[in-house]
Amino acid sequence: MKDIGIGLLGFGTVGAGVVEGLQKNADLIADRLGVRLVLRKIADLDVESDRGVAVDSSILTKDAESVIADDSVDIVIELIGGTGIAKKLVLSALEAGKPVVTANKALLAKHGAEIFGLAVKTNTEIRFGASVGGGIPIIRALREGLIGNHIESICGILNGTCNYILTEMETEGLSFDEALNMAQEAGYAEADPALDIDGFDTAHKAVILASLAYGFNVPMGSVHVEGVRGLSAWDIKRAVDLGYRIKLLAVIRKVGDGVEVRVHPTLVPLGHVLASVAGVFNAVMVHGDMTEDTLHYGRGAGKKPTASTVIGDVADLARTIGTKARIGFLPVGGVGDGPVIRDISEIESKYYLRMLLSDQSGALGKITSVLGDAGVGIASVHQDEGGCDGQVPVVLVTHSAVEKDLDVALAKIESMDIVKGVPVRLRIDG
Amino acid sequence: MKDIGIGLLGFGTVGAGVVEGLQKNADLIADRLGVRLVLRKIADLDVESDRGVAVDSSILTKDAESVIADDSVDIVIELIGGTGIAKKLVLSALEAGKPVVTANKALLAKHGAEIFGLAVKTNTEIRFGASVGGGIPIIRALREGLIGNHIESICGILNGTCNYILTEMETEGLSFDEALNMAQEAGYAEADPALDIDGFDTAHKAVILASLAYGFNVPMGSVHVEGVRGLSAWDIKRAVDLGYRIKLLAVIRKVGDGVEVRVHPTLVPLGHVLASVAGVFNAVMVHGDMTEDTLHYGRGAGKKPTASTVIGDVADLARTIGTKARIGFLPVGGVGDGPVIRDISEIESKYYLRMLLSDQSGALGKITSVLGDAGVGIASVHQDEGGCDGQVPVVLVTHSAVEKDLDVALAKIESMDIVKGVPVRLRIDG
Repeated sequence: MKDIGIGLLGFGTVGAGVVEGLQKNADLIADRLGVRLVLRKIADLDVESDRGVAVDSSILTKDAESVIADDSVDIVIELIGGTGIAKKLVLSALEAGKPVVTANKALLAKHGAEIFGLAVKTNTEIRFGASVGGGIPIIRALREGLIGNHIESICGILNGTCNYILTEMETEGLSFDEALNMAQEAGYAEADPALDIDGFDTAHKAVILASLAYGFNVPMGSVHVEGVRGLSAWDIKRAVDLGYRIKLLAVIRKVGDGVEVRVHPTLVPLGHVLASVAGVFNAVMVHGDMTEDTLHYGRGAGKKPTASTVIGDVADLARTIGTKARIGFLPVGGVGDGPVIRDISEIESKYYLRMLLSDQSGALGKITSVLGDAGVGIASVHQDEGGCDGQVPVVLVTHSAVEKDLDVALAKIESMDIVKGVPVRLRIDG
Repeated sequence: MKDIGIGLLGFGTVGAGVVEGLQKNADLIADRLGVRLVLRKIADLDVESDRGVAVDSSILTKDAESVIADDSVDIVIELIGGTGIAKKLVLSALEAGKPVVTANKALLAKHGAEIFGLAVKTNTEIRFGASVGGGIPIIRALREGLIGNHIESICGILNGTCNYILTEMETEGLSFDEALNMAQEAGYAEADPALDIDGFDTAHKAVILASLAYGFNVPMGSVHVEGVRGLSAWDIKRAVDLGYRIKLLAVIRKVGDGVEVRVHPTLVPLGHVLASVAGVFNAVMVHGDMTEDTLHYGRGAGKKPTASTVIGDVADLARTIGTKARIGFLPVGGVGDGPVIRDISEIESKYYLRMLLSDQSGALGKITSVLGDAGVGIASVHQDEGGCDGQVPVVLVTHSAVEKDLDVALAKIESMDIVKGVPVRLRIDG
């Protein structure tokens, strides 16, 4: 049986998972694949620490370029992360004509055009299944299984940290800060959680999915991003009372000639399958013109699930290496120039609005007439008895409206004496 | 751009969907694939009827072998169905070295060993993504994405007809016959529904999944099959009261050196994600030793979803044709002889038992002591007030027990004077 040499760049958590998987399931993989995957070199700045897997110290090096240059290395796995040295090494491997597997969502979201462009130029494969959805085969589904589909929409829960926080806030009645602390104690959130909770990790993944779906480079700067930081437990509970669950969604949708790519907390109807995705799990709903809805669900992160997807990508490359076969398509070229990214102000959505109003006669009427004048229709109004300090929280659910019309109305509403503080505005979808 | 010639055998509903997809999304597919898929020949006994797609009559023929033999045909799609002429033609194409795409679950479940064996012998690819799960990329996930995983279990809702019937029985309170009539009127069930409702369609799919997961041929005769025919609306409602929903599940599970492959109505906890799969949708939960749980959900049948998967398979073949690359593995060979199929009598499960008891003092005690003597522990007993004709329905939920021990107890119970009719026994899983 032929050996295929693997070079691993980055021996962190996922890297150790890949080594563990390649060792533990070596015979199974060789039997299924018809070739044997052999780990030839591992590069990391730390070549001393115990990662819990047995590795011959002779294959460890601090010199990543030497791994790429090694003649016995056929496939390069990049698991360093970030957009610095990782970018340089991925480009270097592609220049050398060595196929690359990466899980680096930030790198692809920010430098995808350059990296995919080089892969096409040097006719070298790059696989990135683990960059979105960890153990979920969503990139594979889009690049291969759904190849015959125009993608009409993709709605995804793509960040386990945020989903865990939202689930804990709802089920345990915690504040955002309490739930974030819990996530950090459970190892589900970083010490600096900004990348997750402010929505940028989700946005990186949305850029990759949107680029694949529409065959053109989606700039990160064109994506509207709101995270879950500061969401109120009151709104989460109120949403459930109204028949919705709040999820941080990536929403990618073709509308006319444009494409919406946005990340924000979203009220999803309780009966929708995405509403049932709890805790650290991720899920992606894809609507194609042929398949209609498919849902892809699983662990969106973690050592072994992510390693499993990396190994799946390596196996694809091992099967085709040295042949002219190419697997899946890259988000480059595309038919025509690709669609226009729609600005968030252009989107149409239903909205959940919550504001503190003075408990005085006619206050609500003034609000609804400002909304009505801006063309925003009201579907329902929810005002409980009580309140305090002469103020009552009021929730309004709107009919579908254009975001910029709502912006105009909310600017007026915010400046009114009867309104205390800044109204909360959340989108409803699904 | 290079053309790849397609020959289609079988111009029925899915065949027409494939033609429609290849026409409608031709440019998109060519752009993503780098080659153009060109429909060269279509064989069907009926070359006259309008299928709602425009096809040049010169490519239609009644002679299927001539399509396979045609030099301009590079890939053969078999959508005839059944195990007669379809088998002959698939073997003929493989003999001729022409890669095959099929959606024929019955053919693969019954003659997989012969067909996959020939594919290996002639070094010709066969793809069968649409044989399980229609538009859901579950075969692709198992053959490729999860290649680095030992599969610990697969639990699937694989028949939309049965799932539709069960959903309608629960939500509308219908009897089985009423729900079946509804399914037939809605076009979700055949005039002869036996293949679906008696569980054999699900079993065909279970055989394919189990064969792939464990790399050996699973004989249809080794699969325990119970369908949904005659399920009672009373049990469905009672199960919900107890926190379960009844689903027709294919259960494939590695236990020690053995593998269980079984199809039966199953009580699934309401909080389990499979319990939320309603109507004609299908879903498959796979537990791998690396990925842990992944769920694959979508339309398990239908013209366009099934055609989408067929086209995805054709695209894979088009990318690798003429190269030595092979995509995915086949359920042949395997490490060693493959695991032993465990007989249903050997399995361990929790059970839902429902029986009609004489409304007399001590009756229930006699039942529980028979169960206890057989080693079947009782988790809960549910007996409502009332009943009629001196009989009351009693539901018992057991702890985990070995099926053959329960068989012994139920044989005794059935013969007791205090028991009317045959007790209902349903397994609990998930």
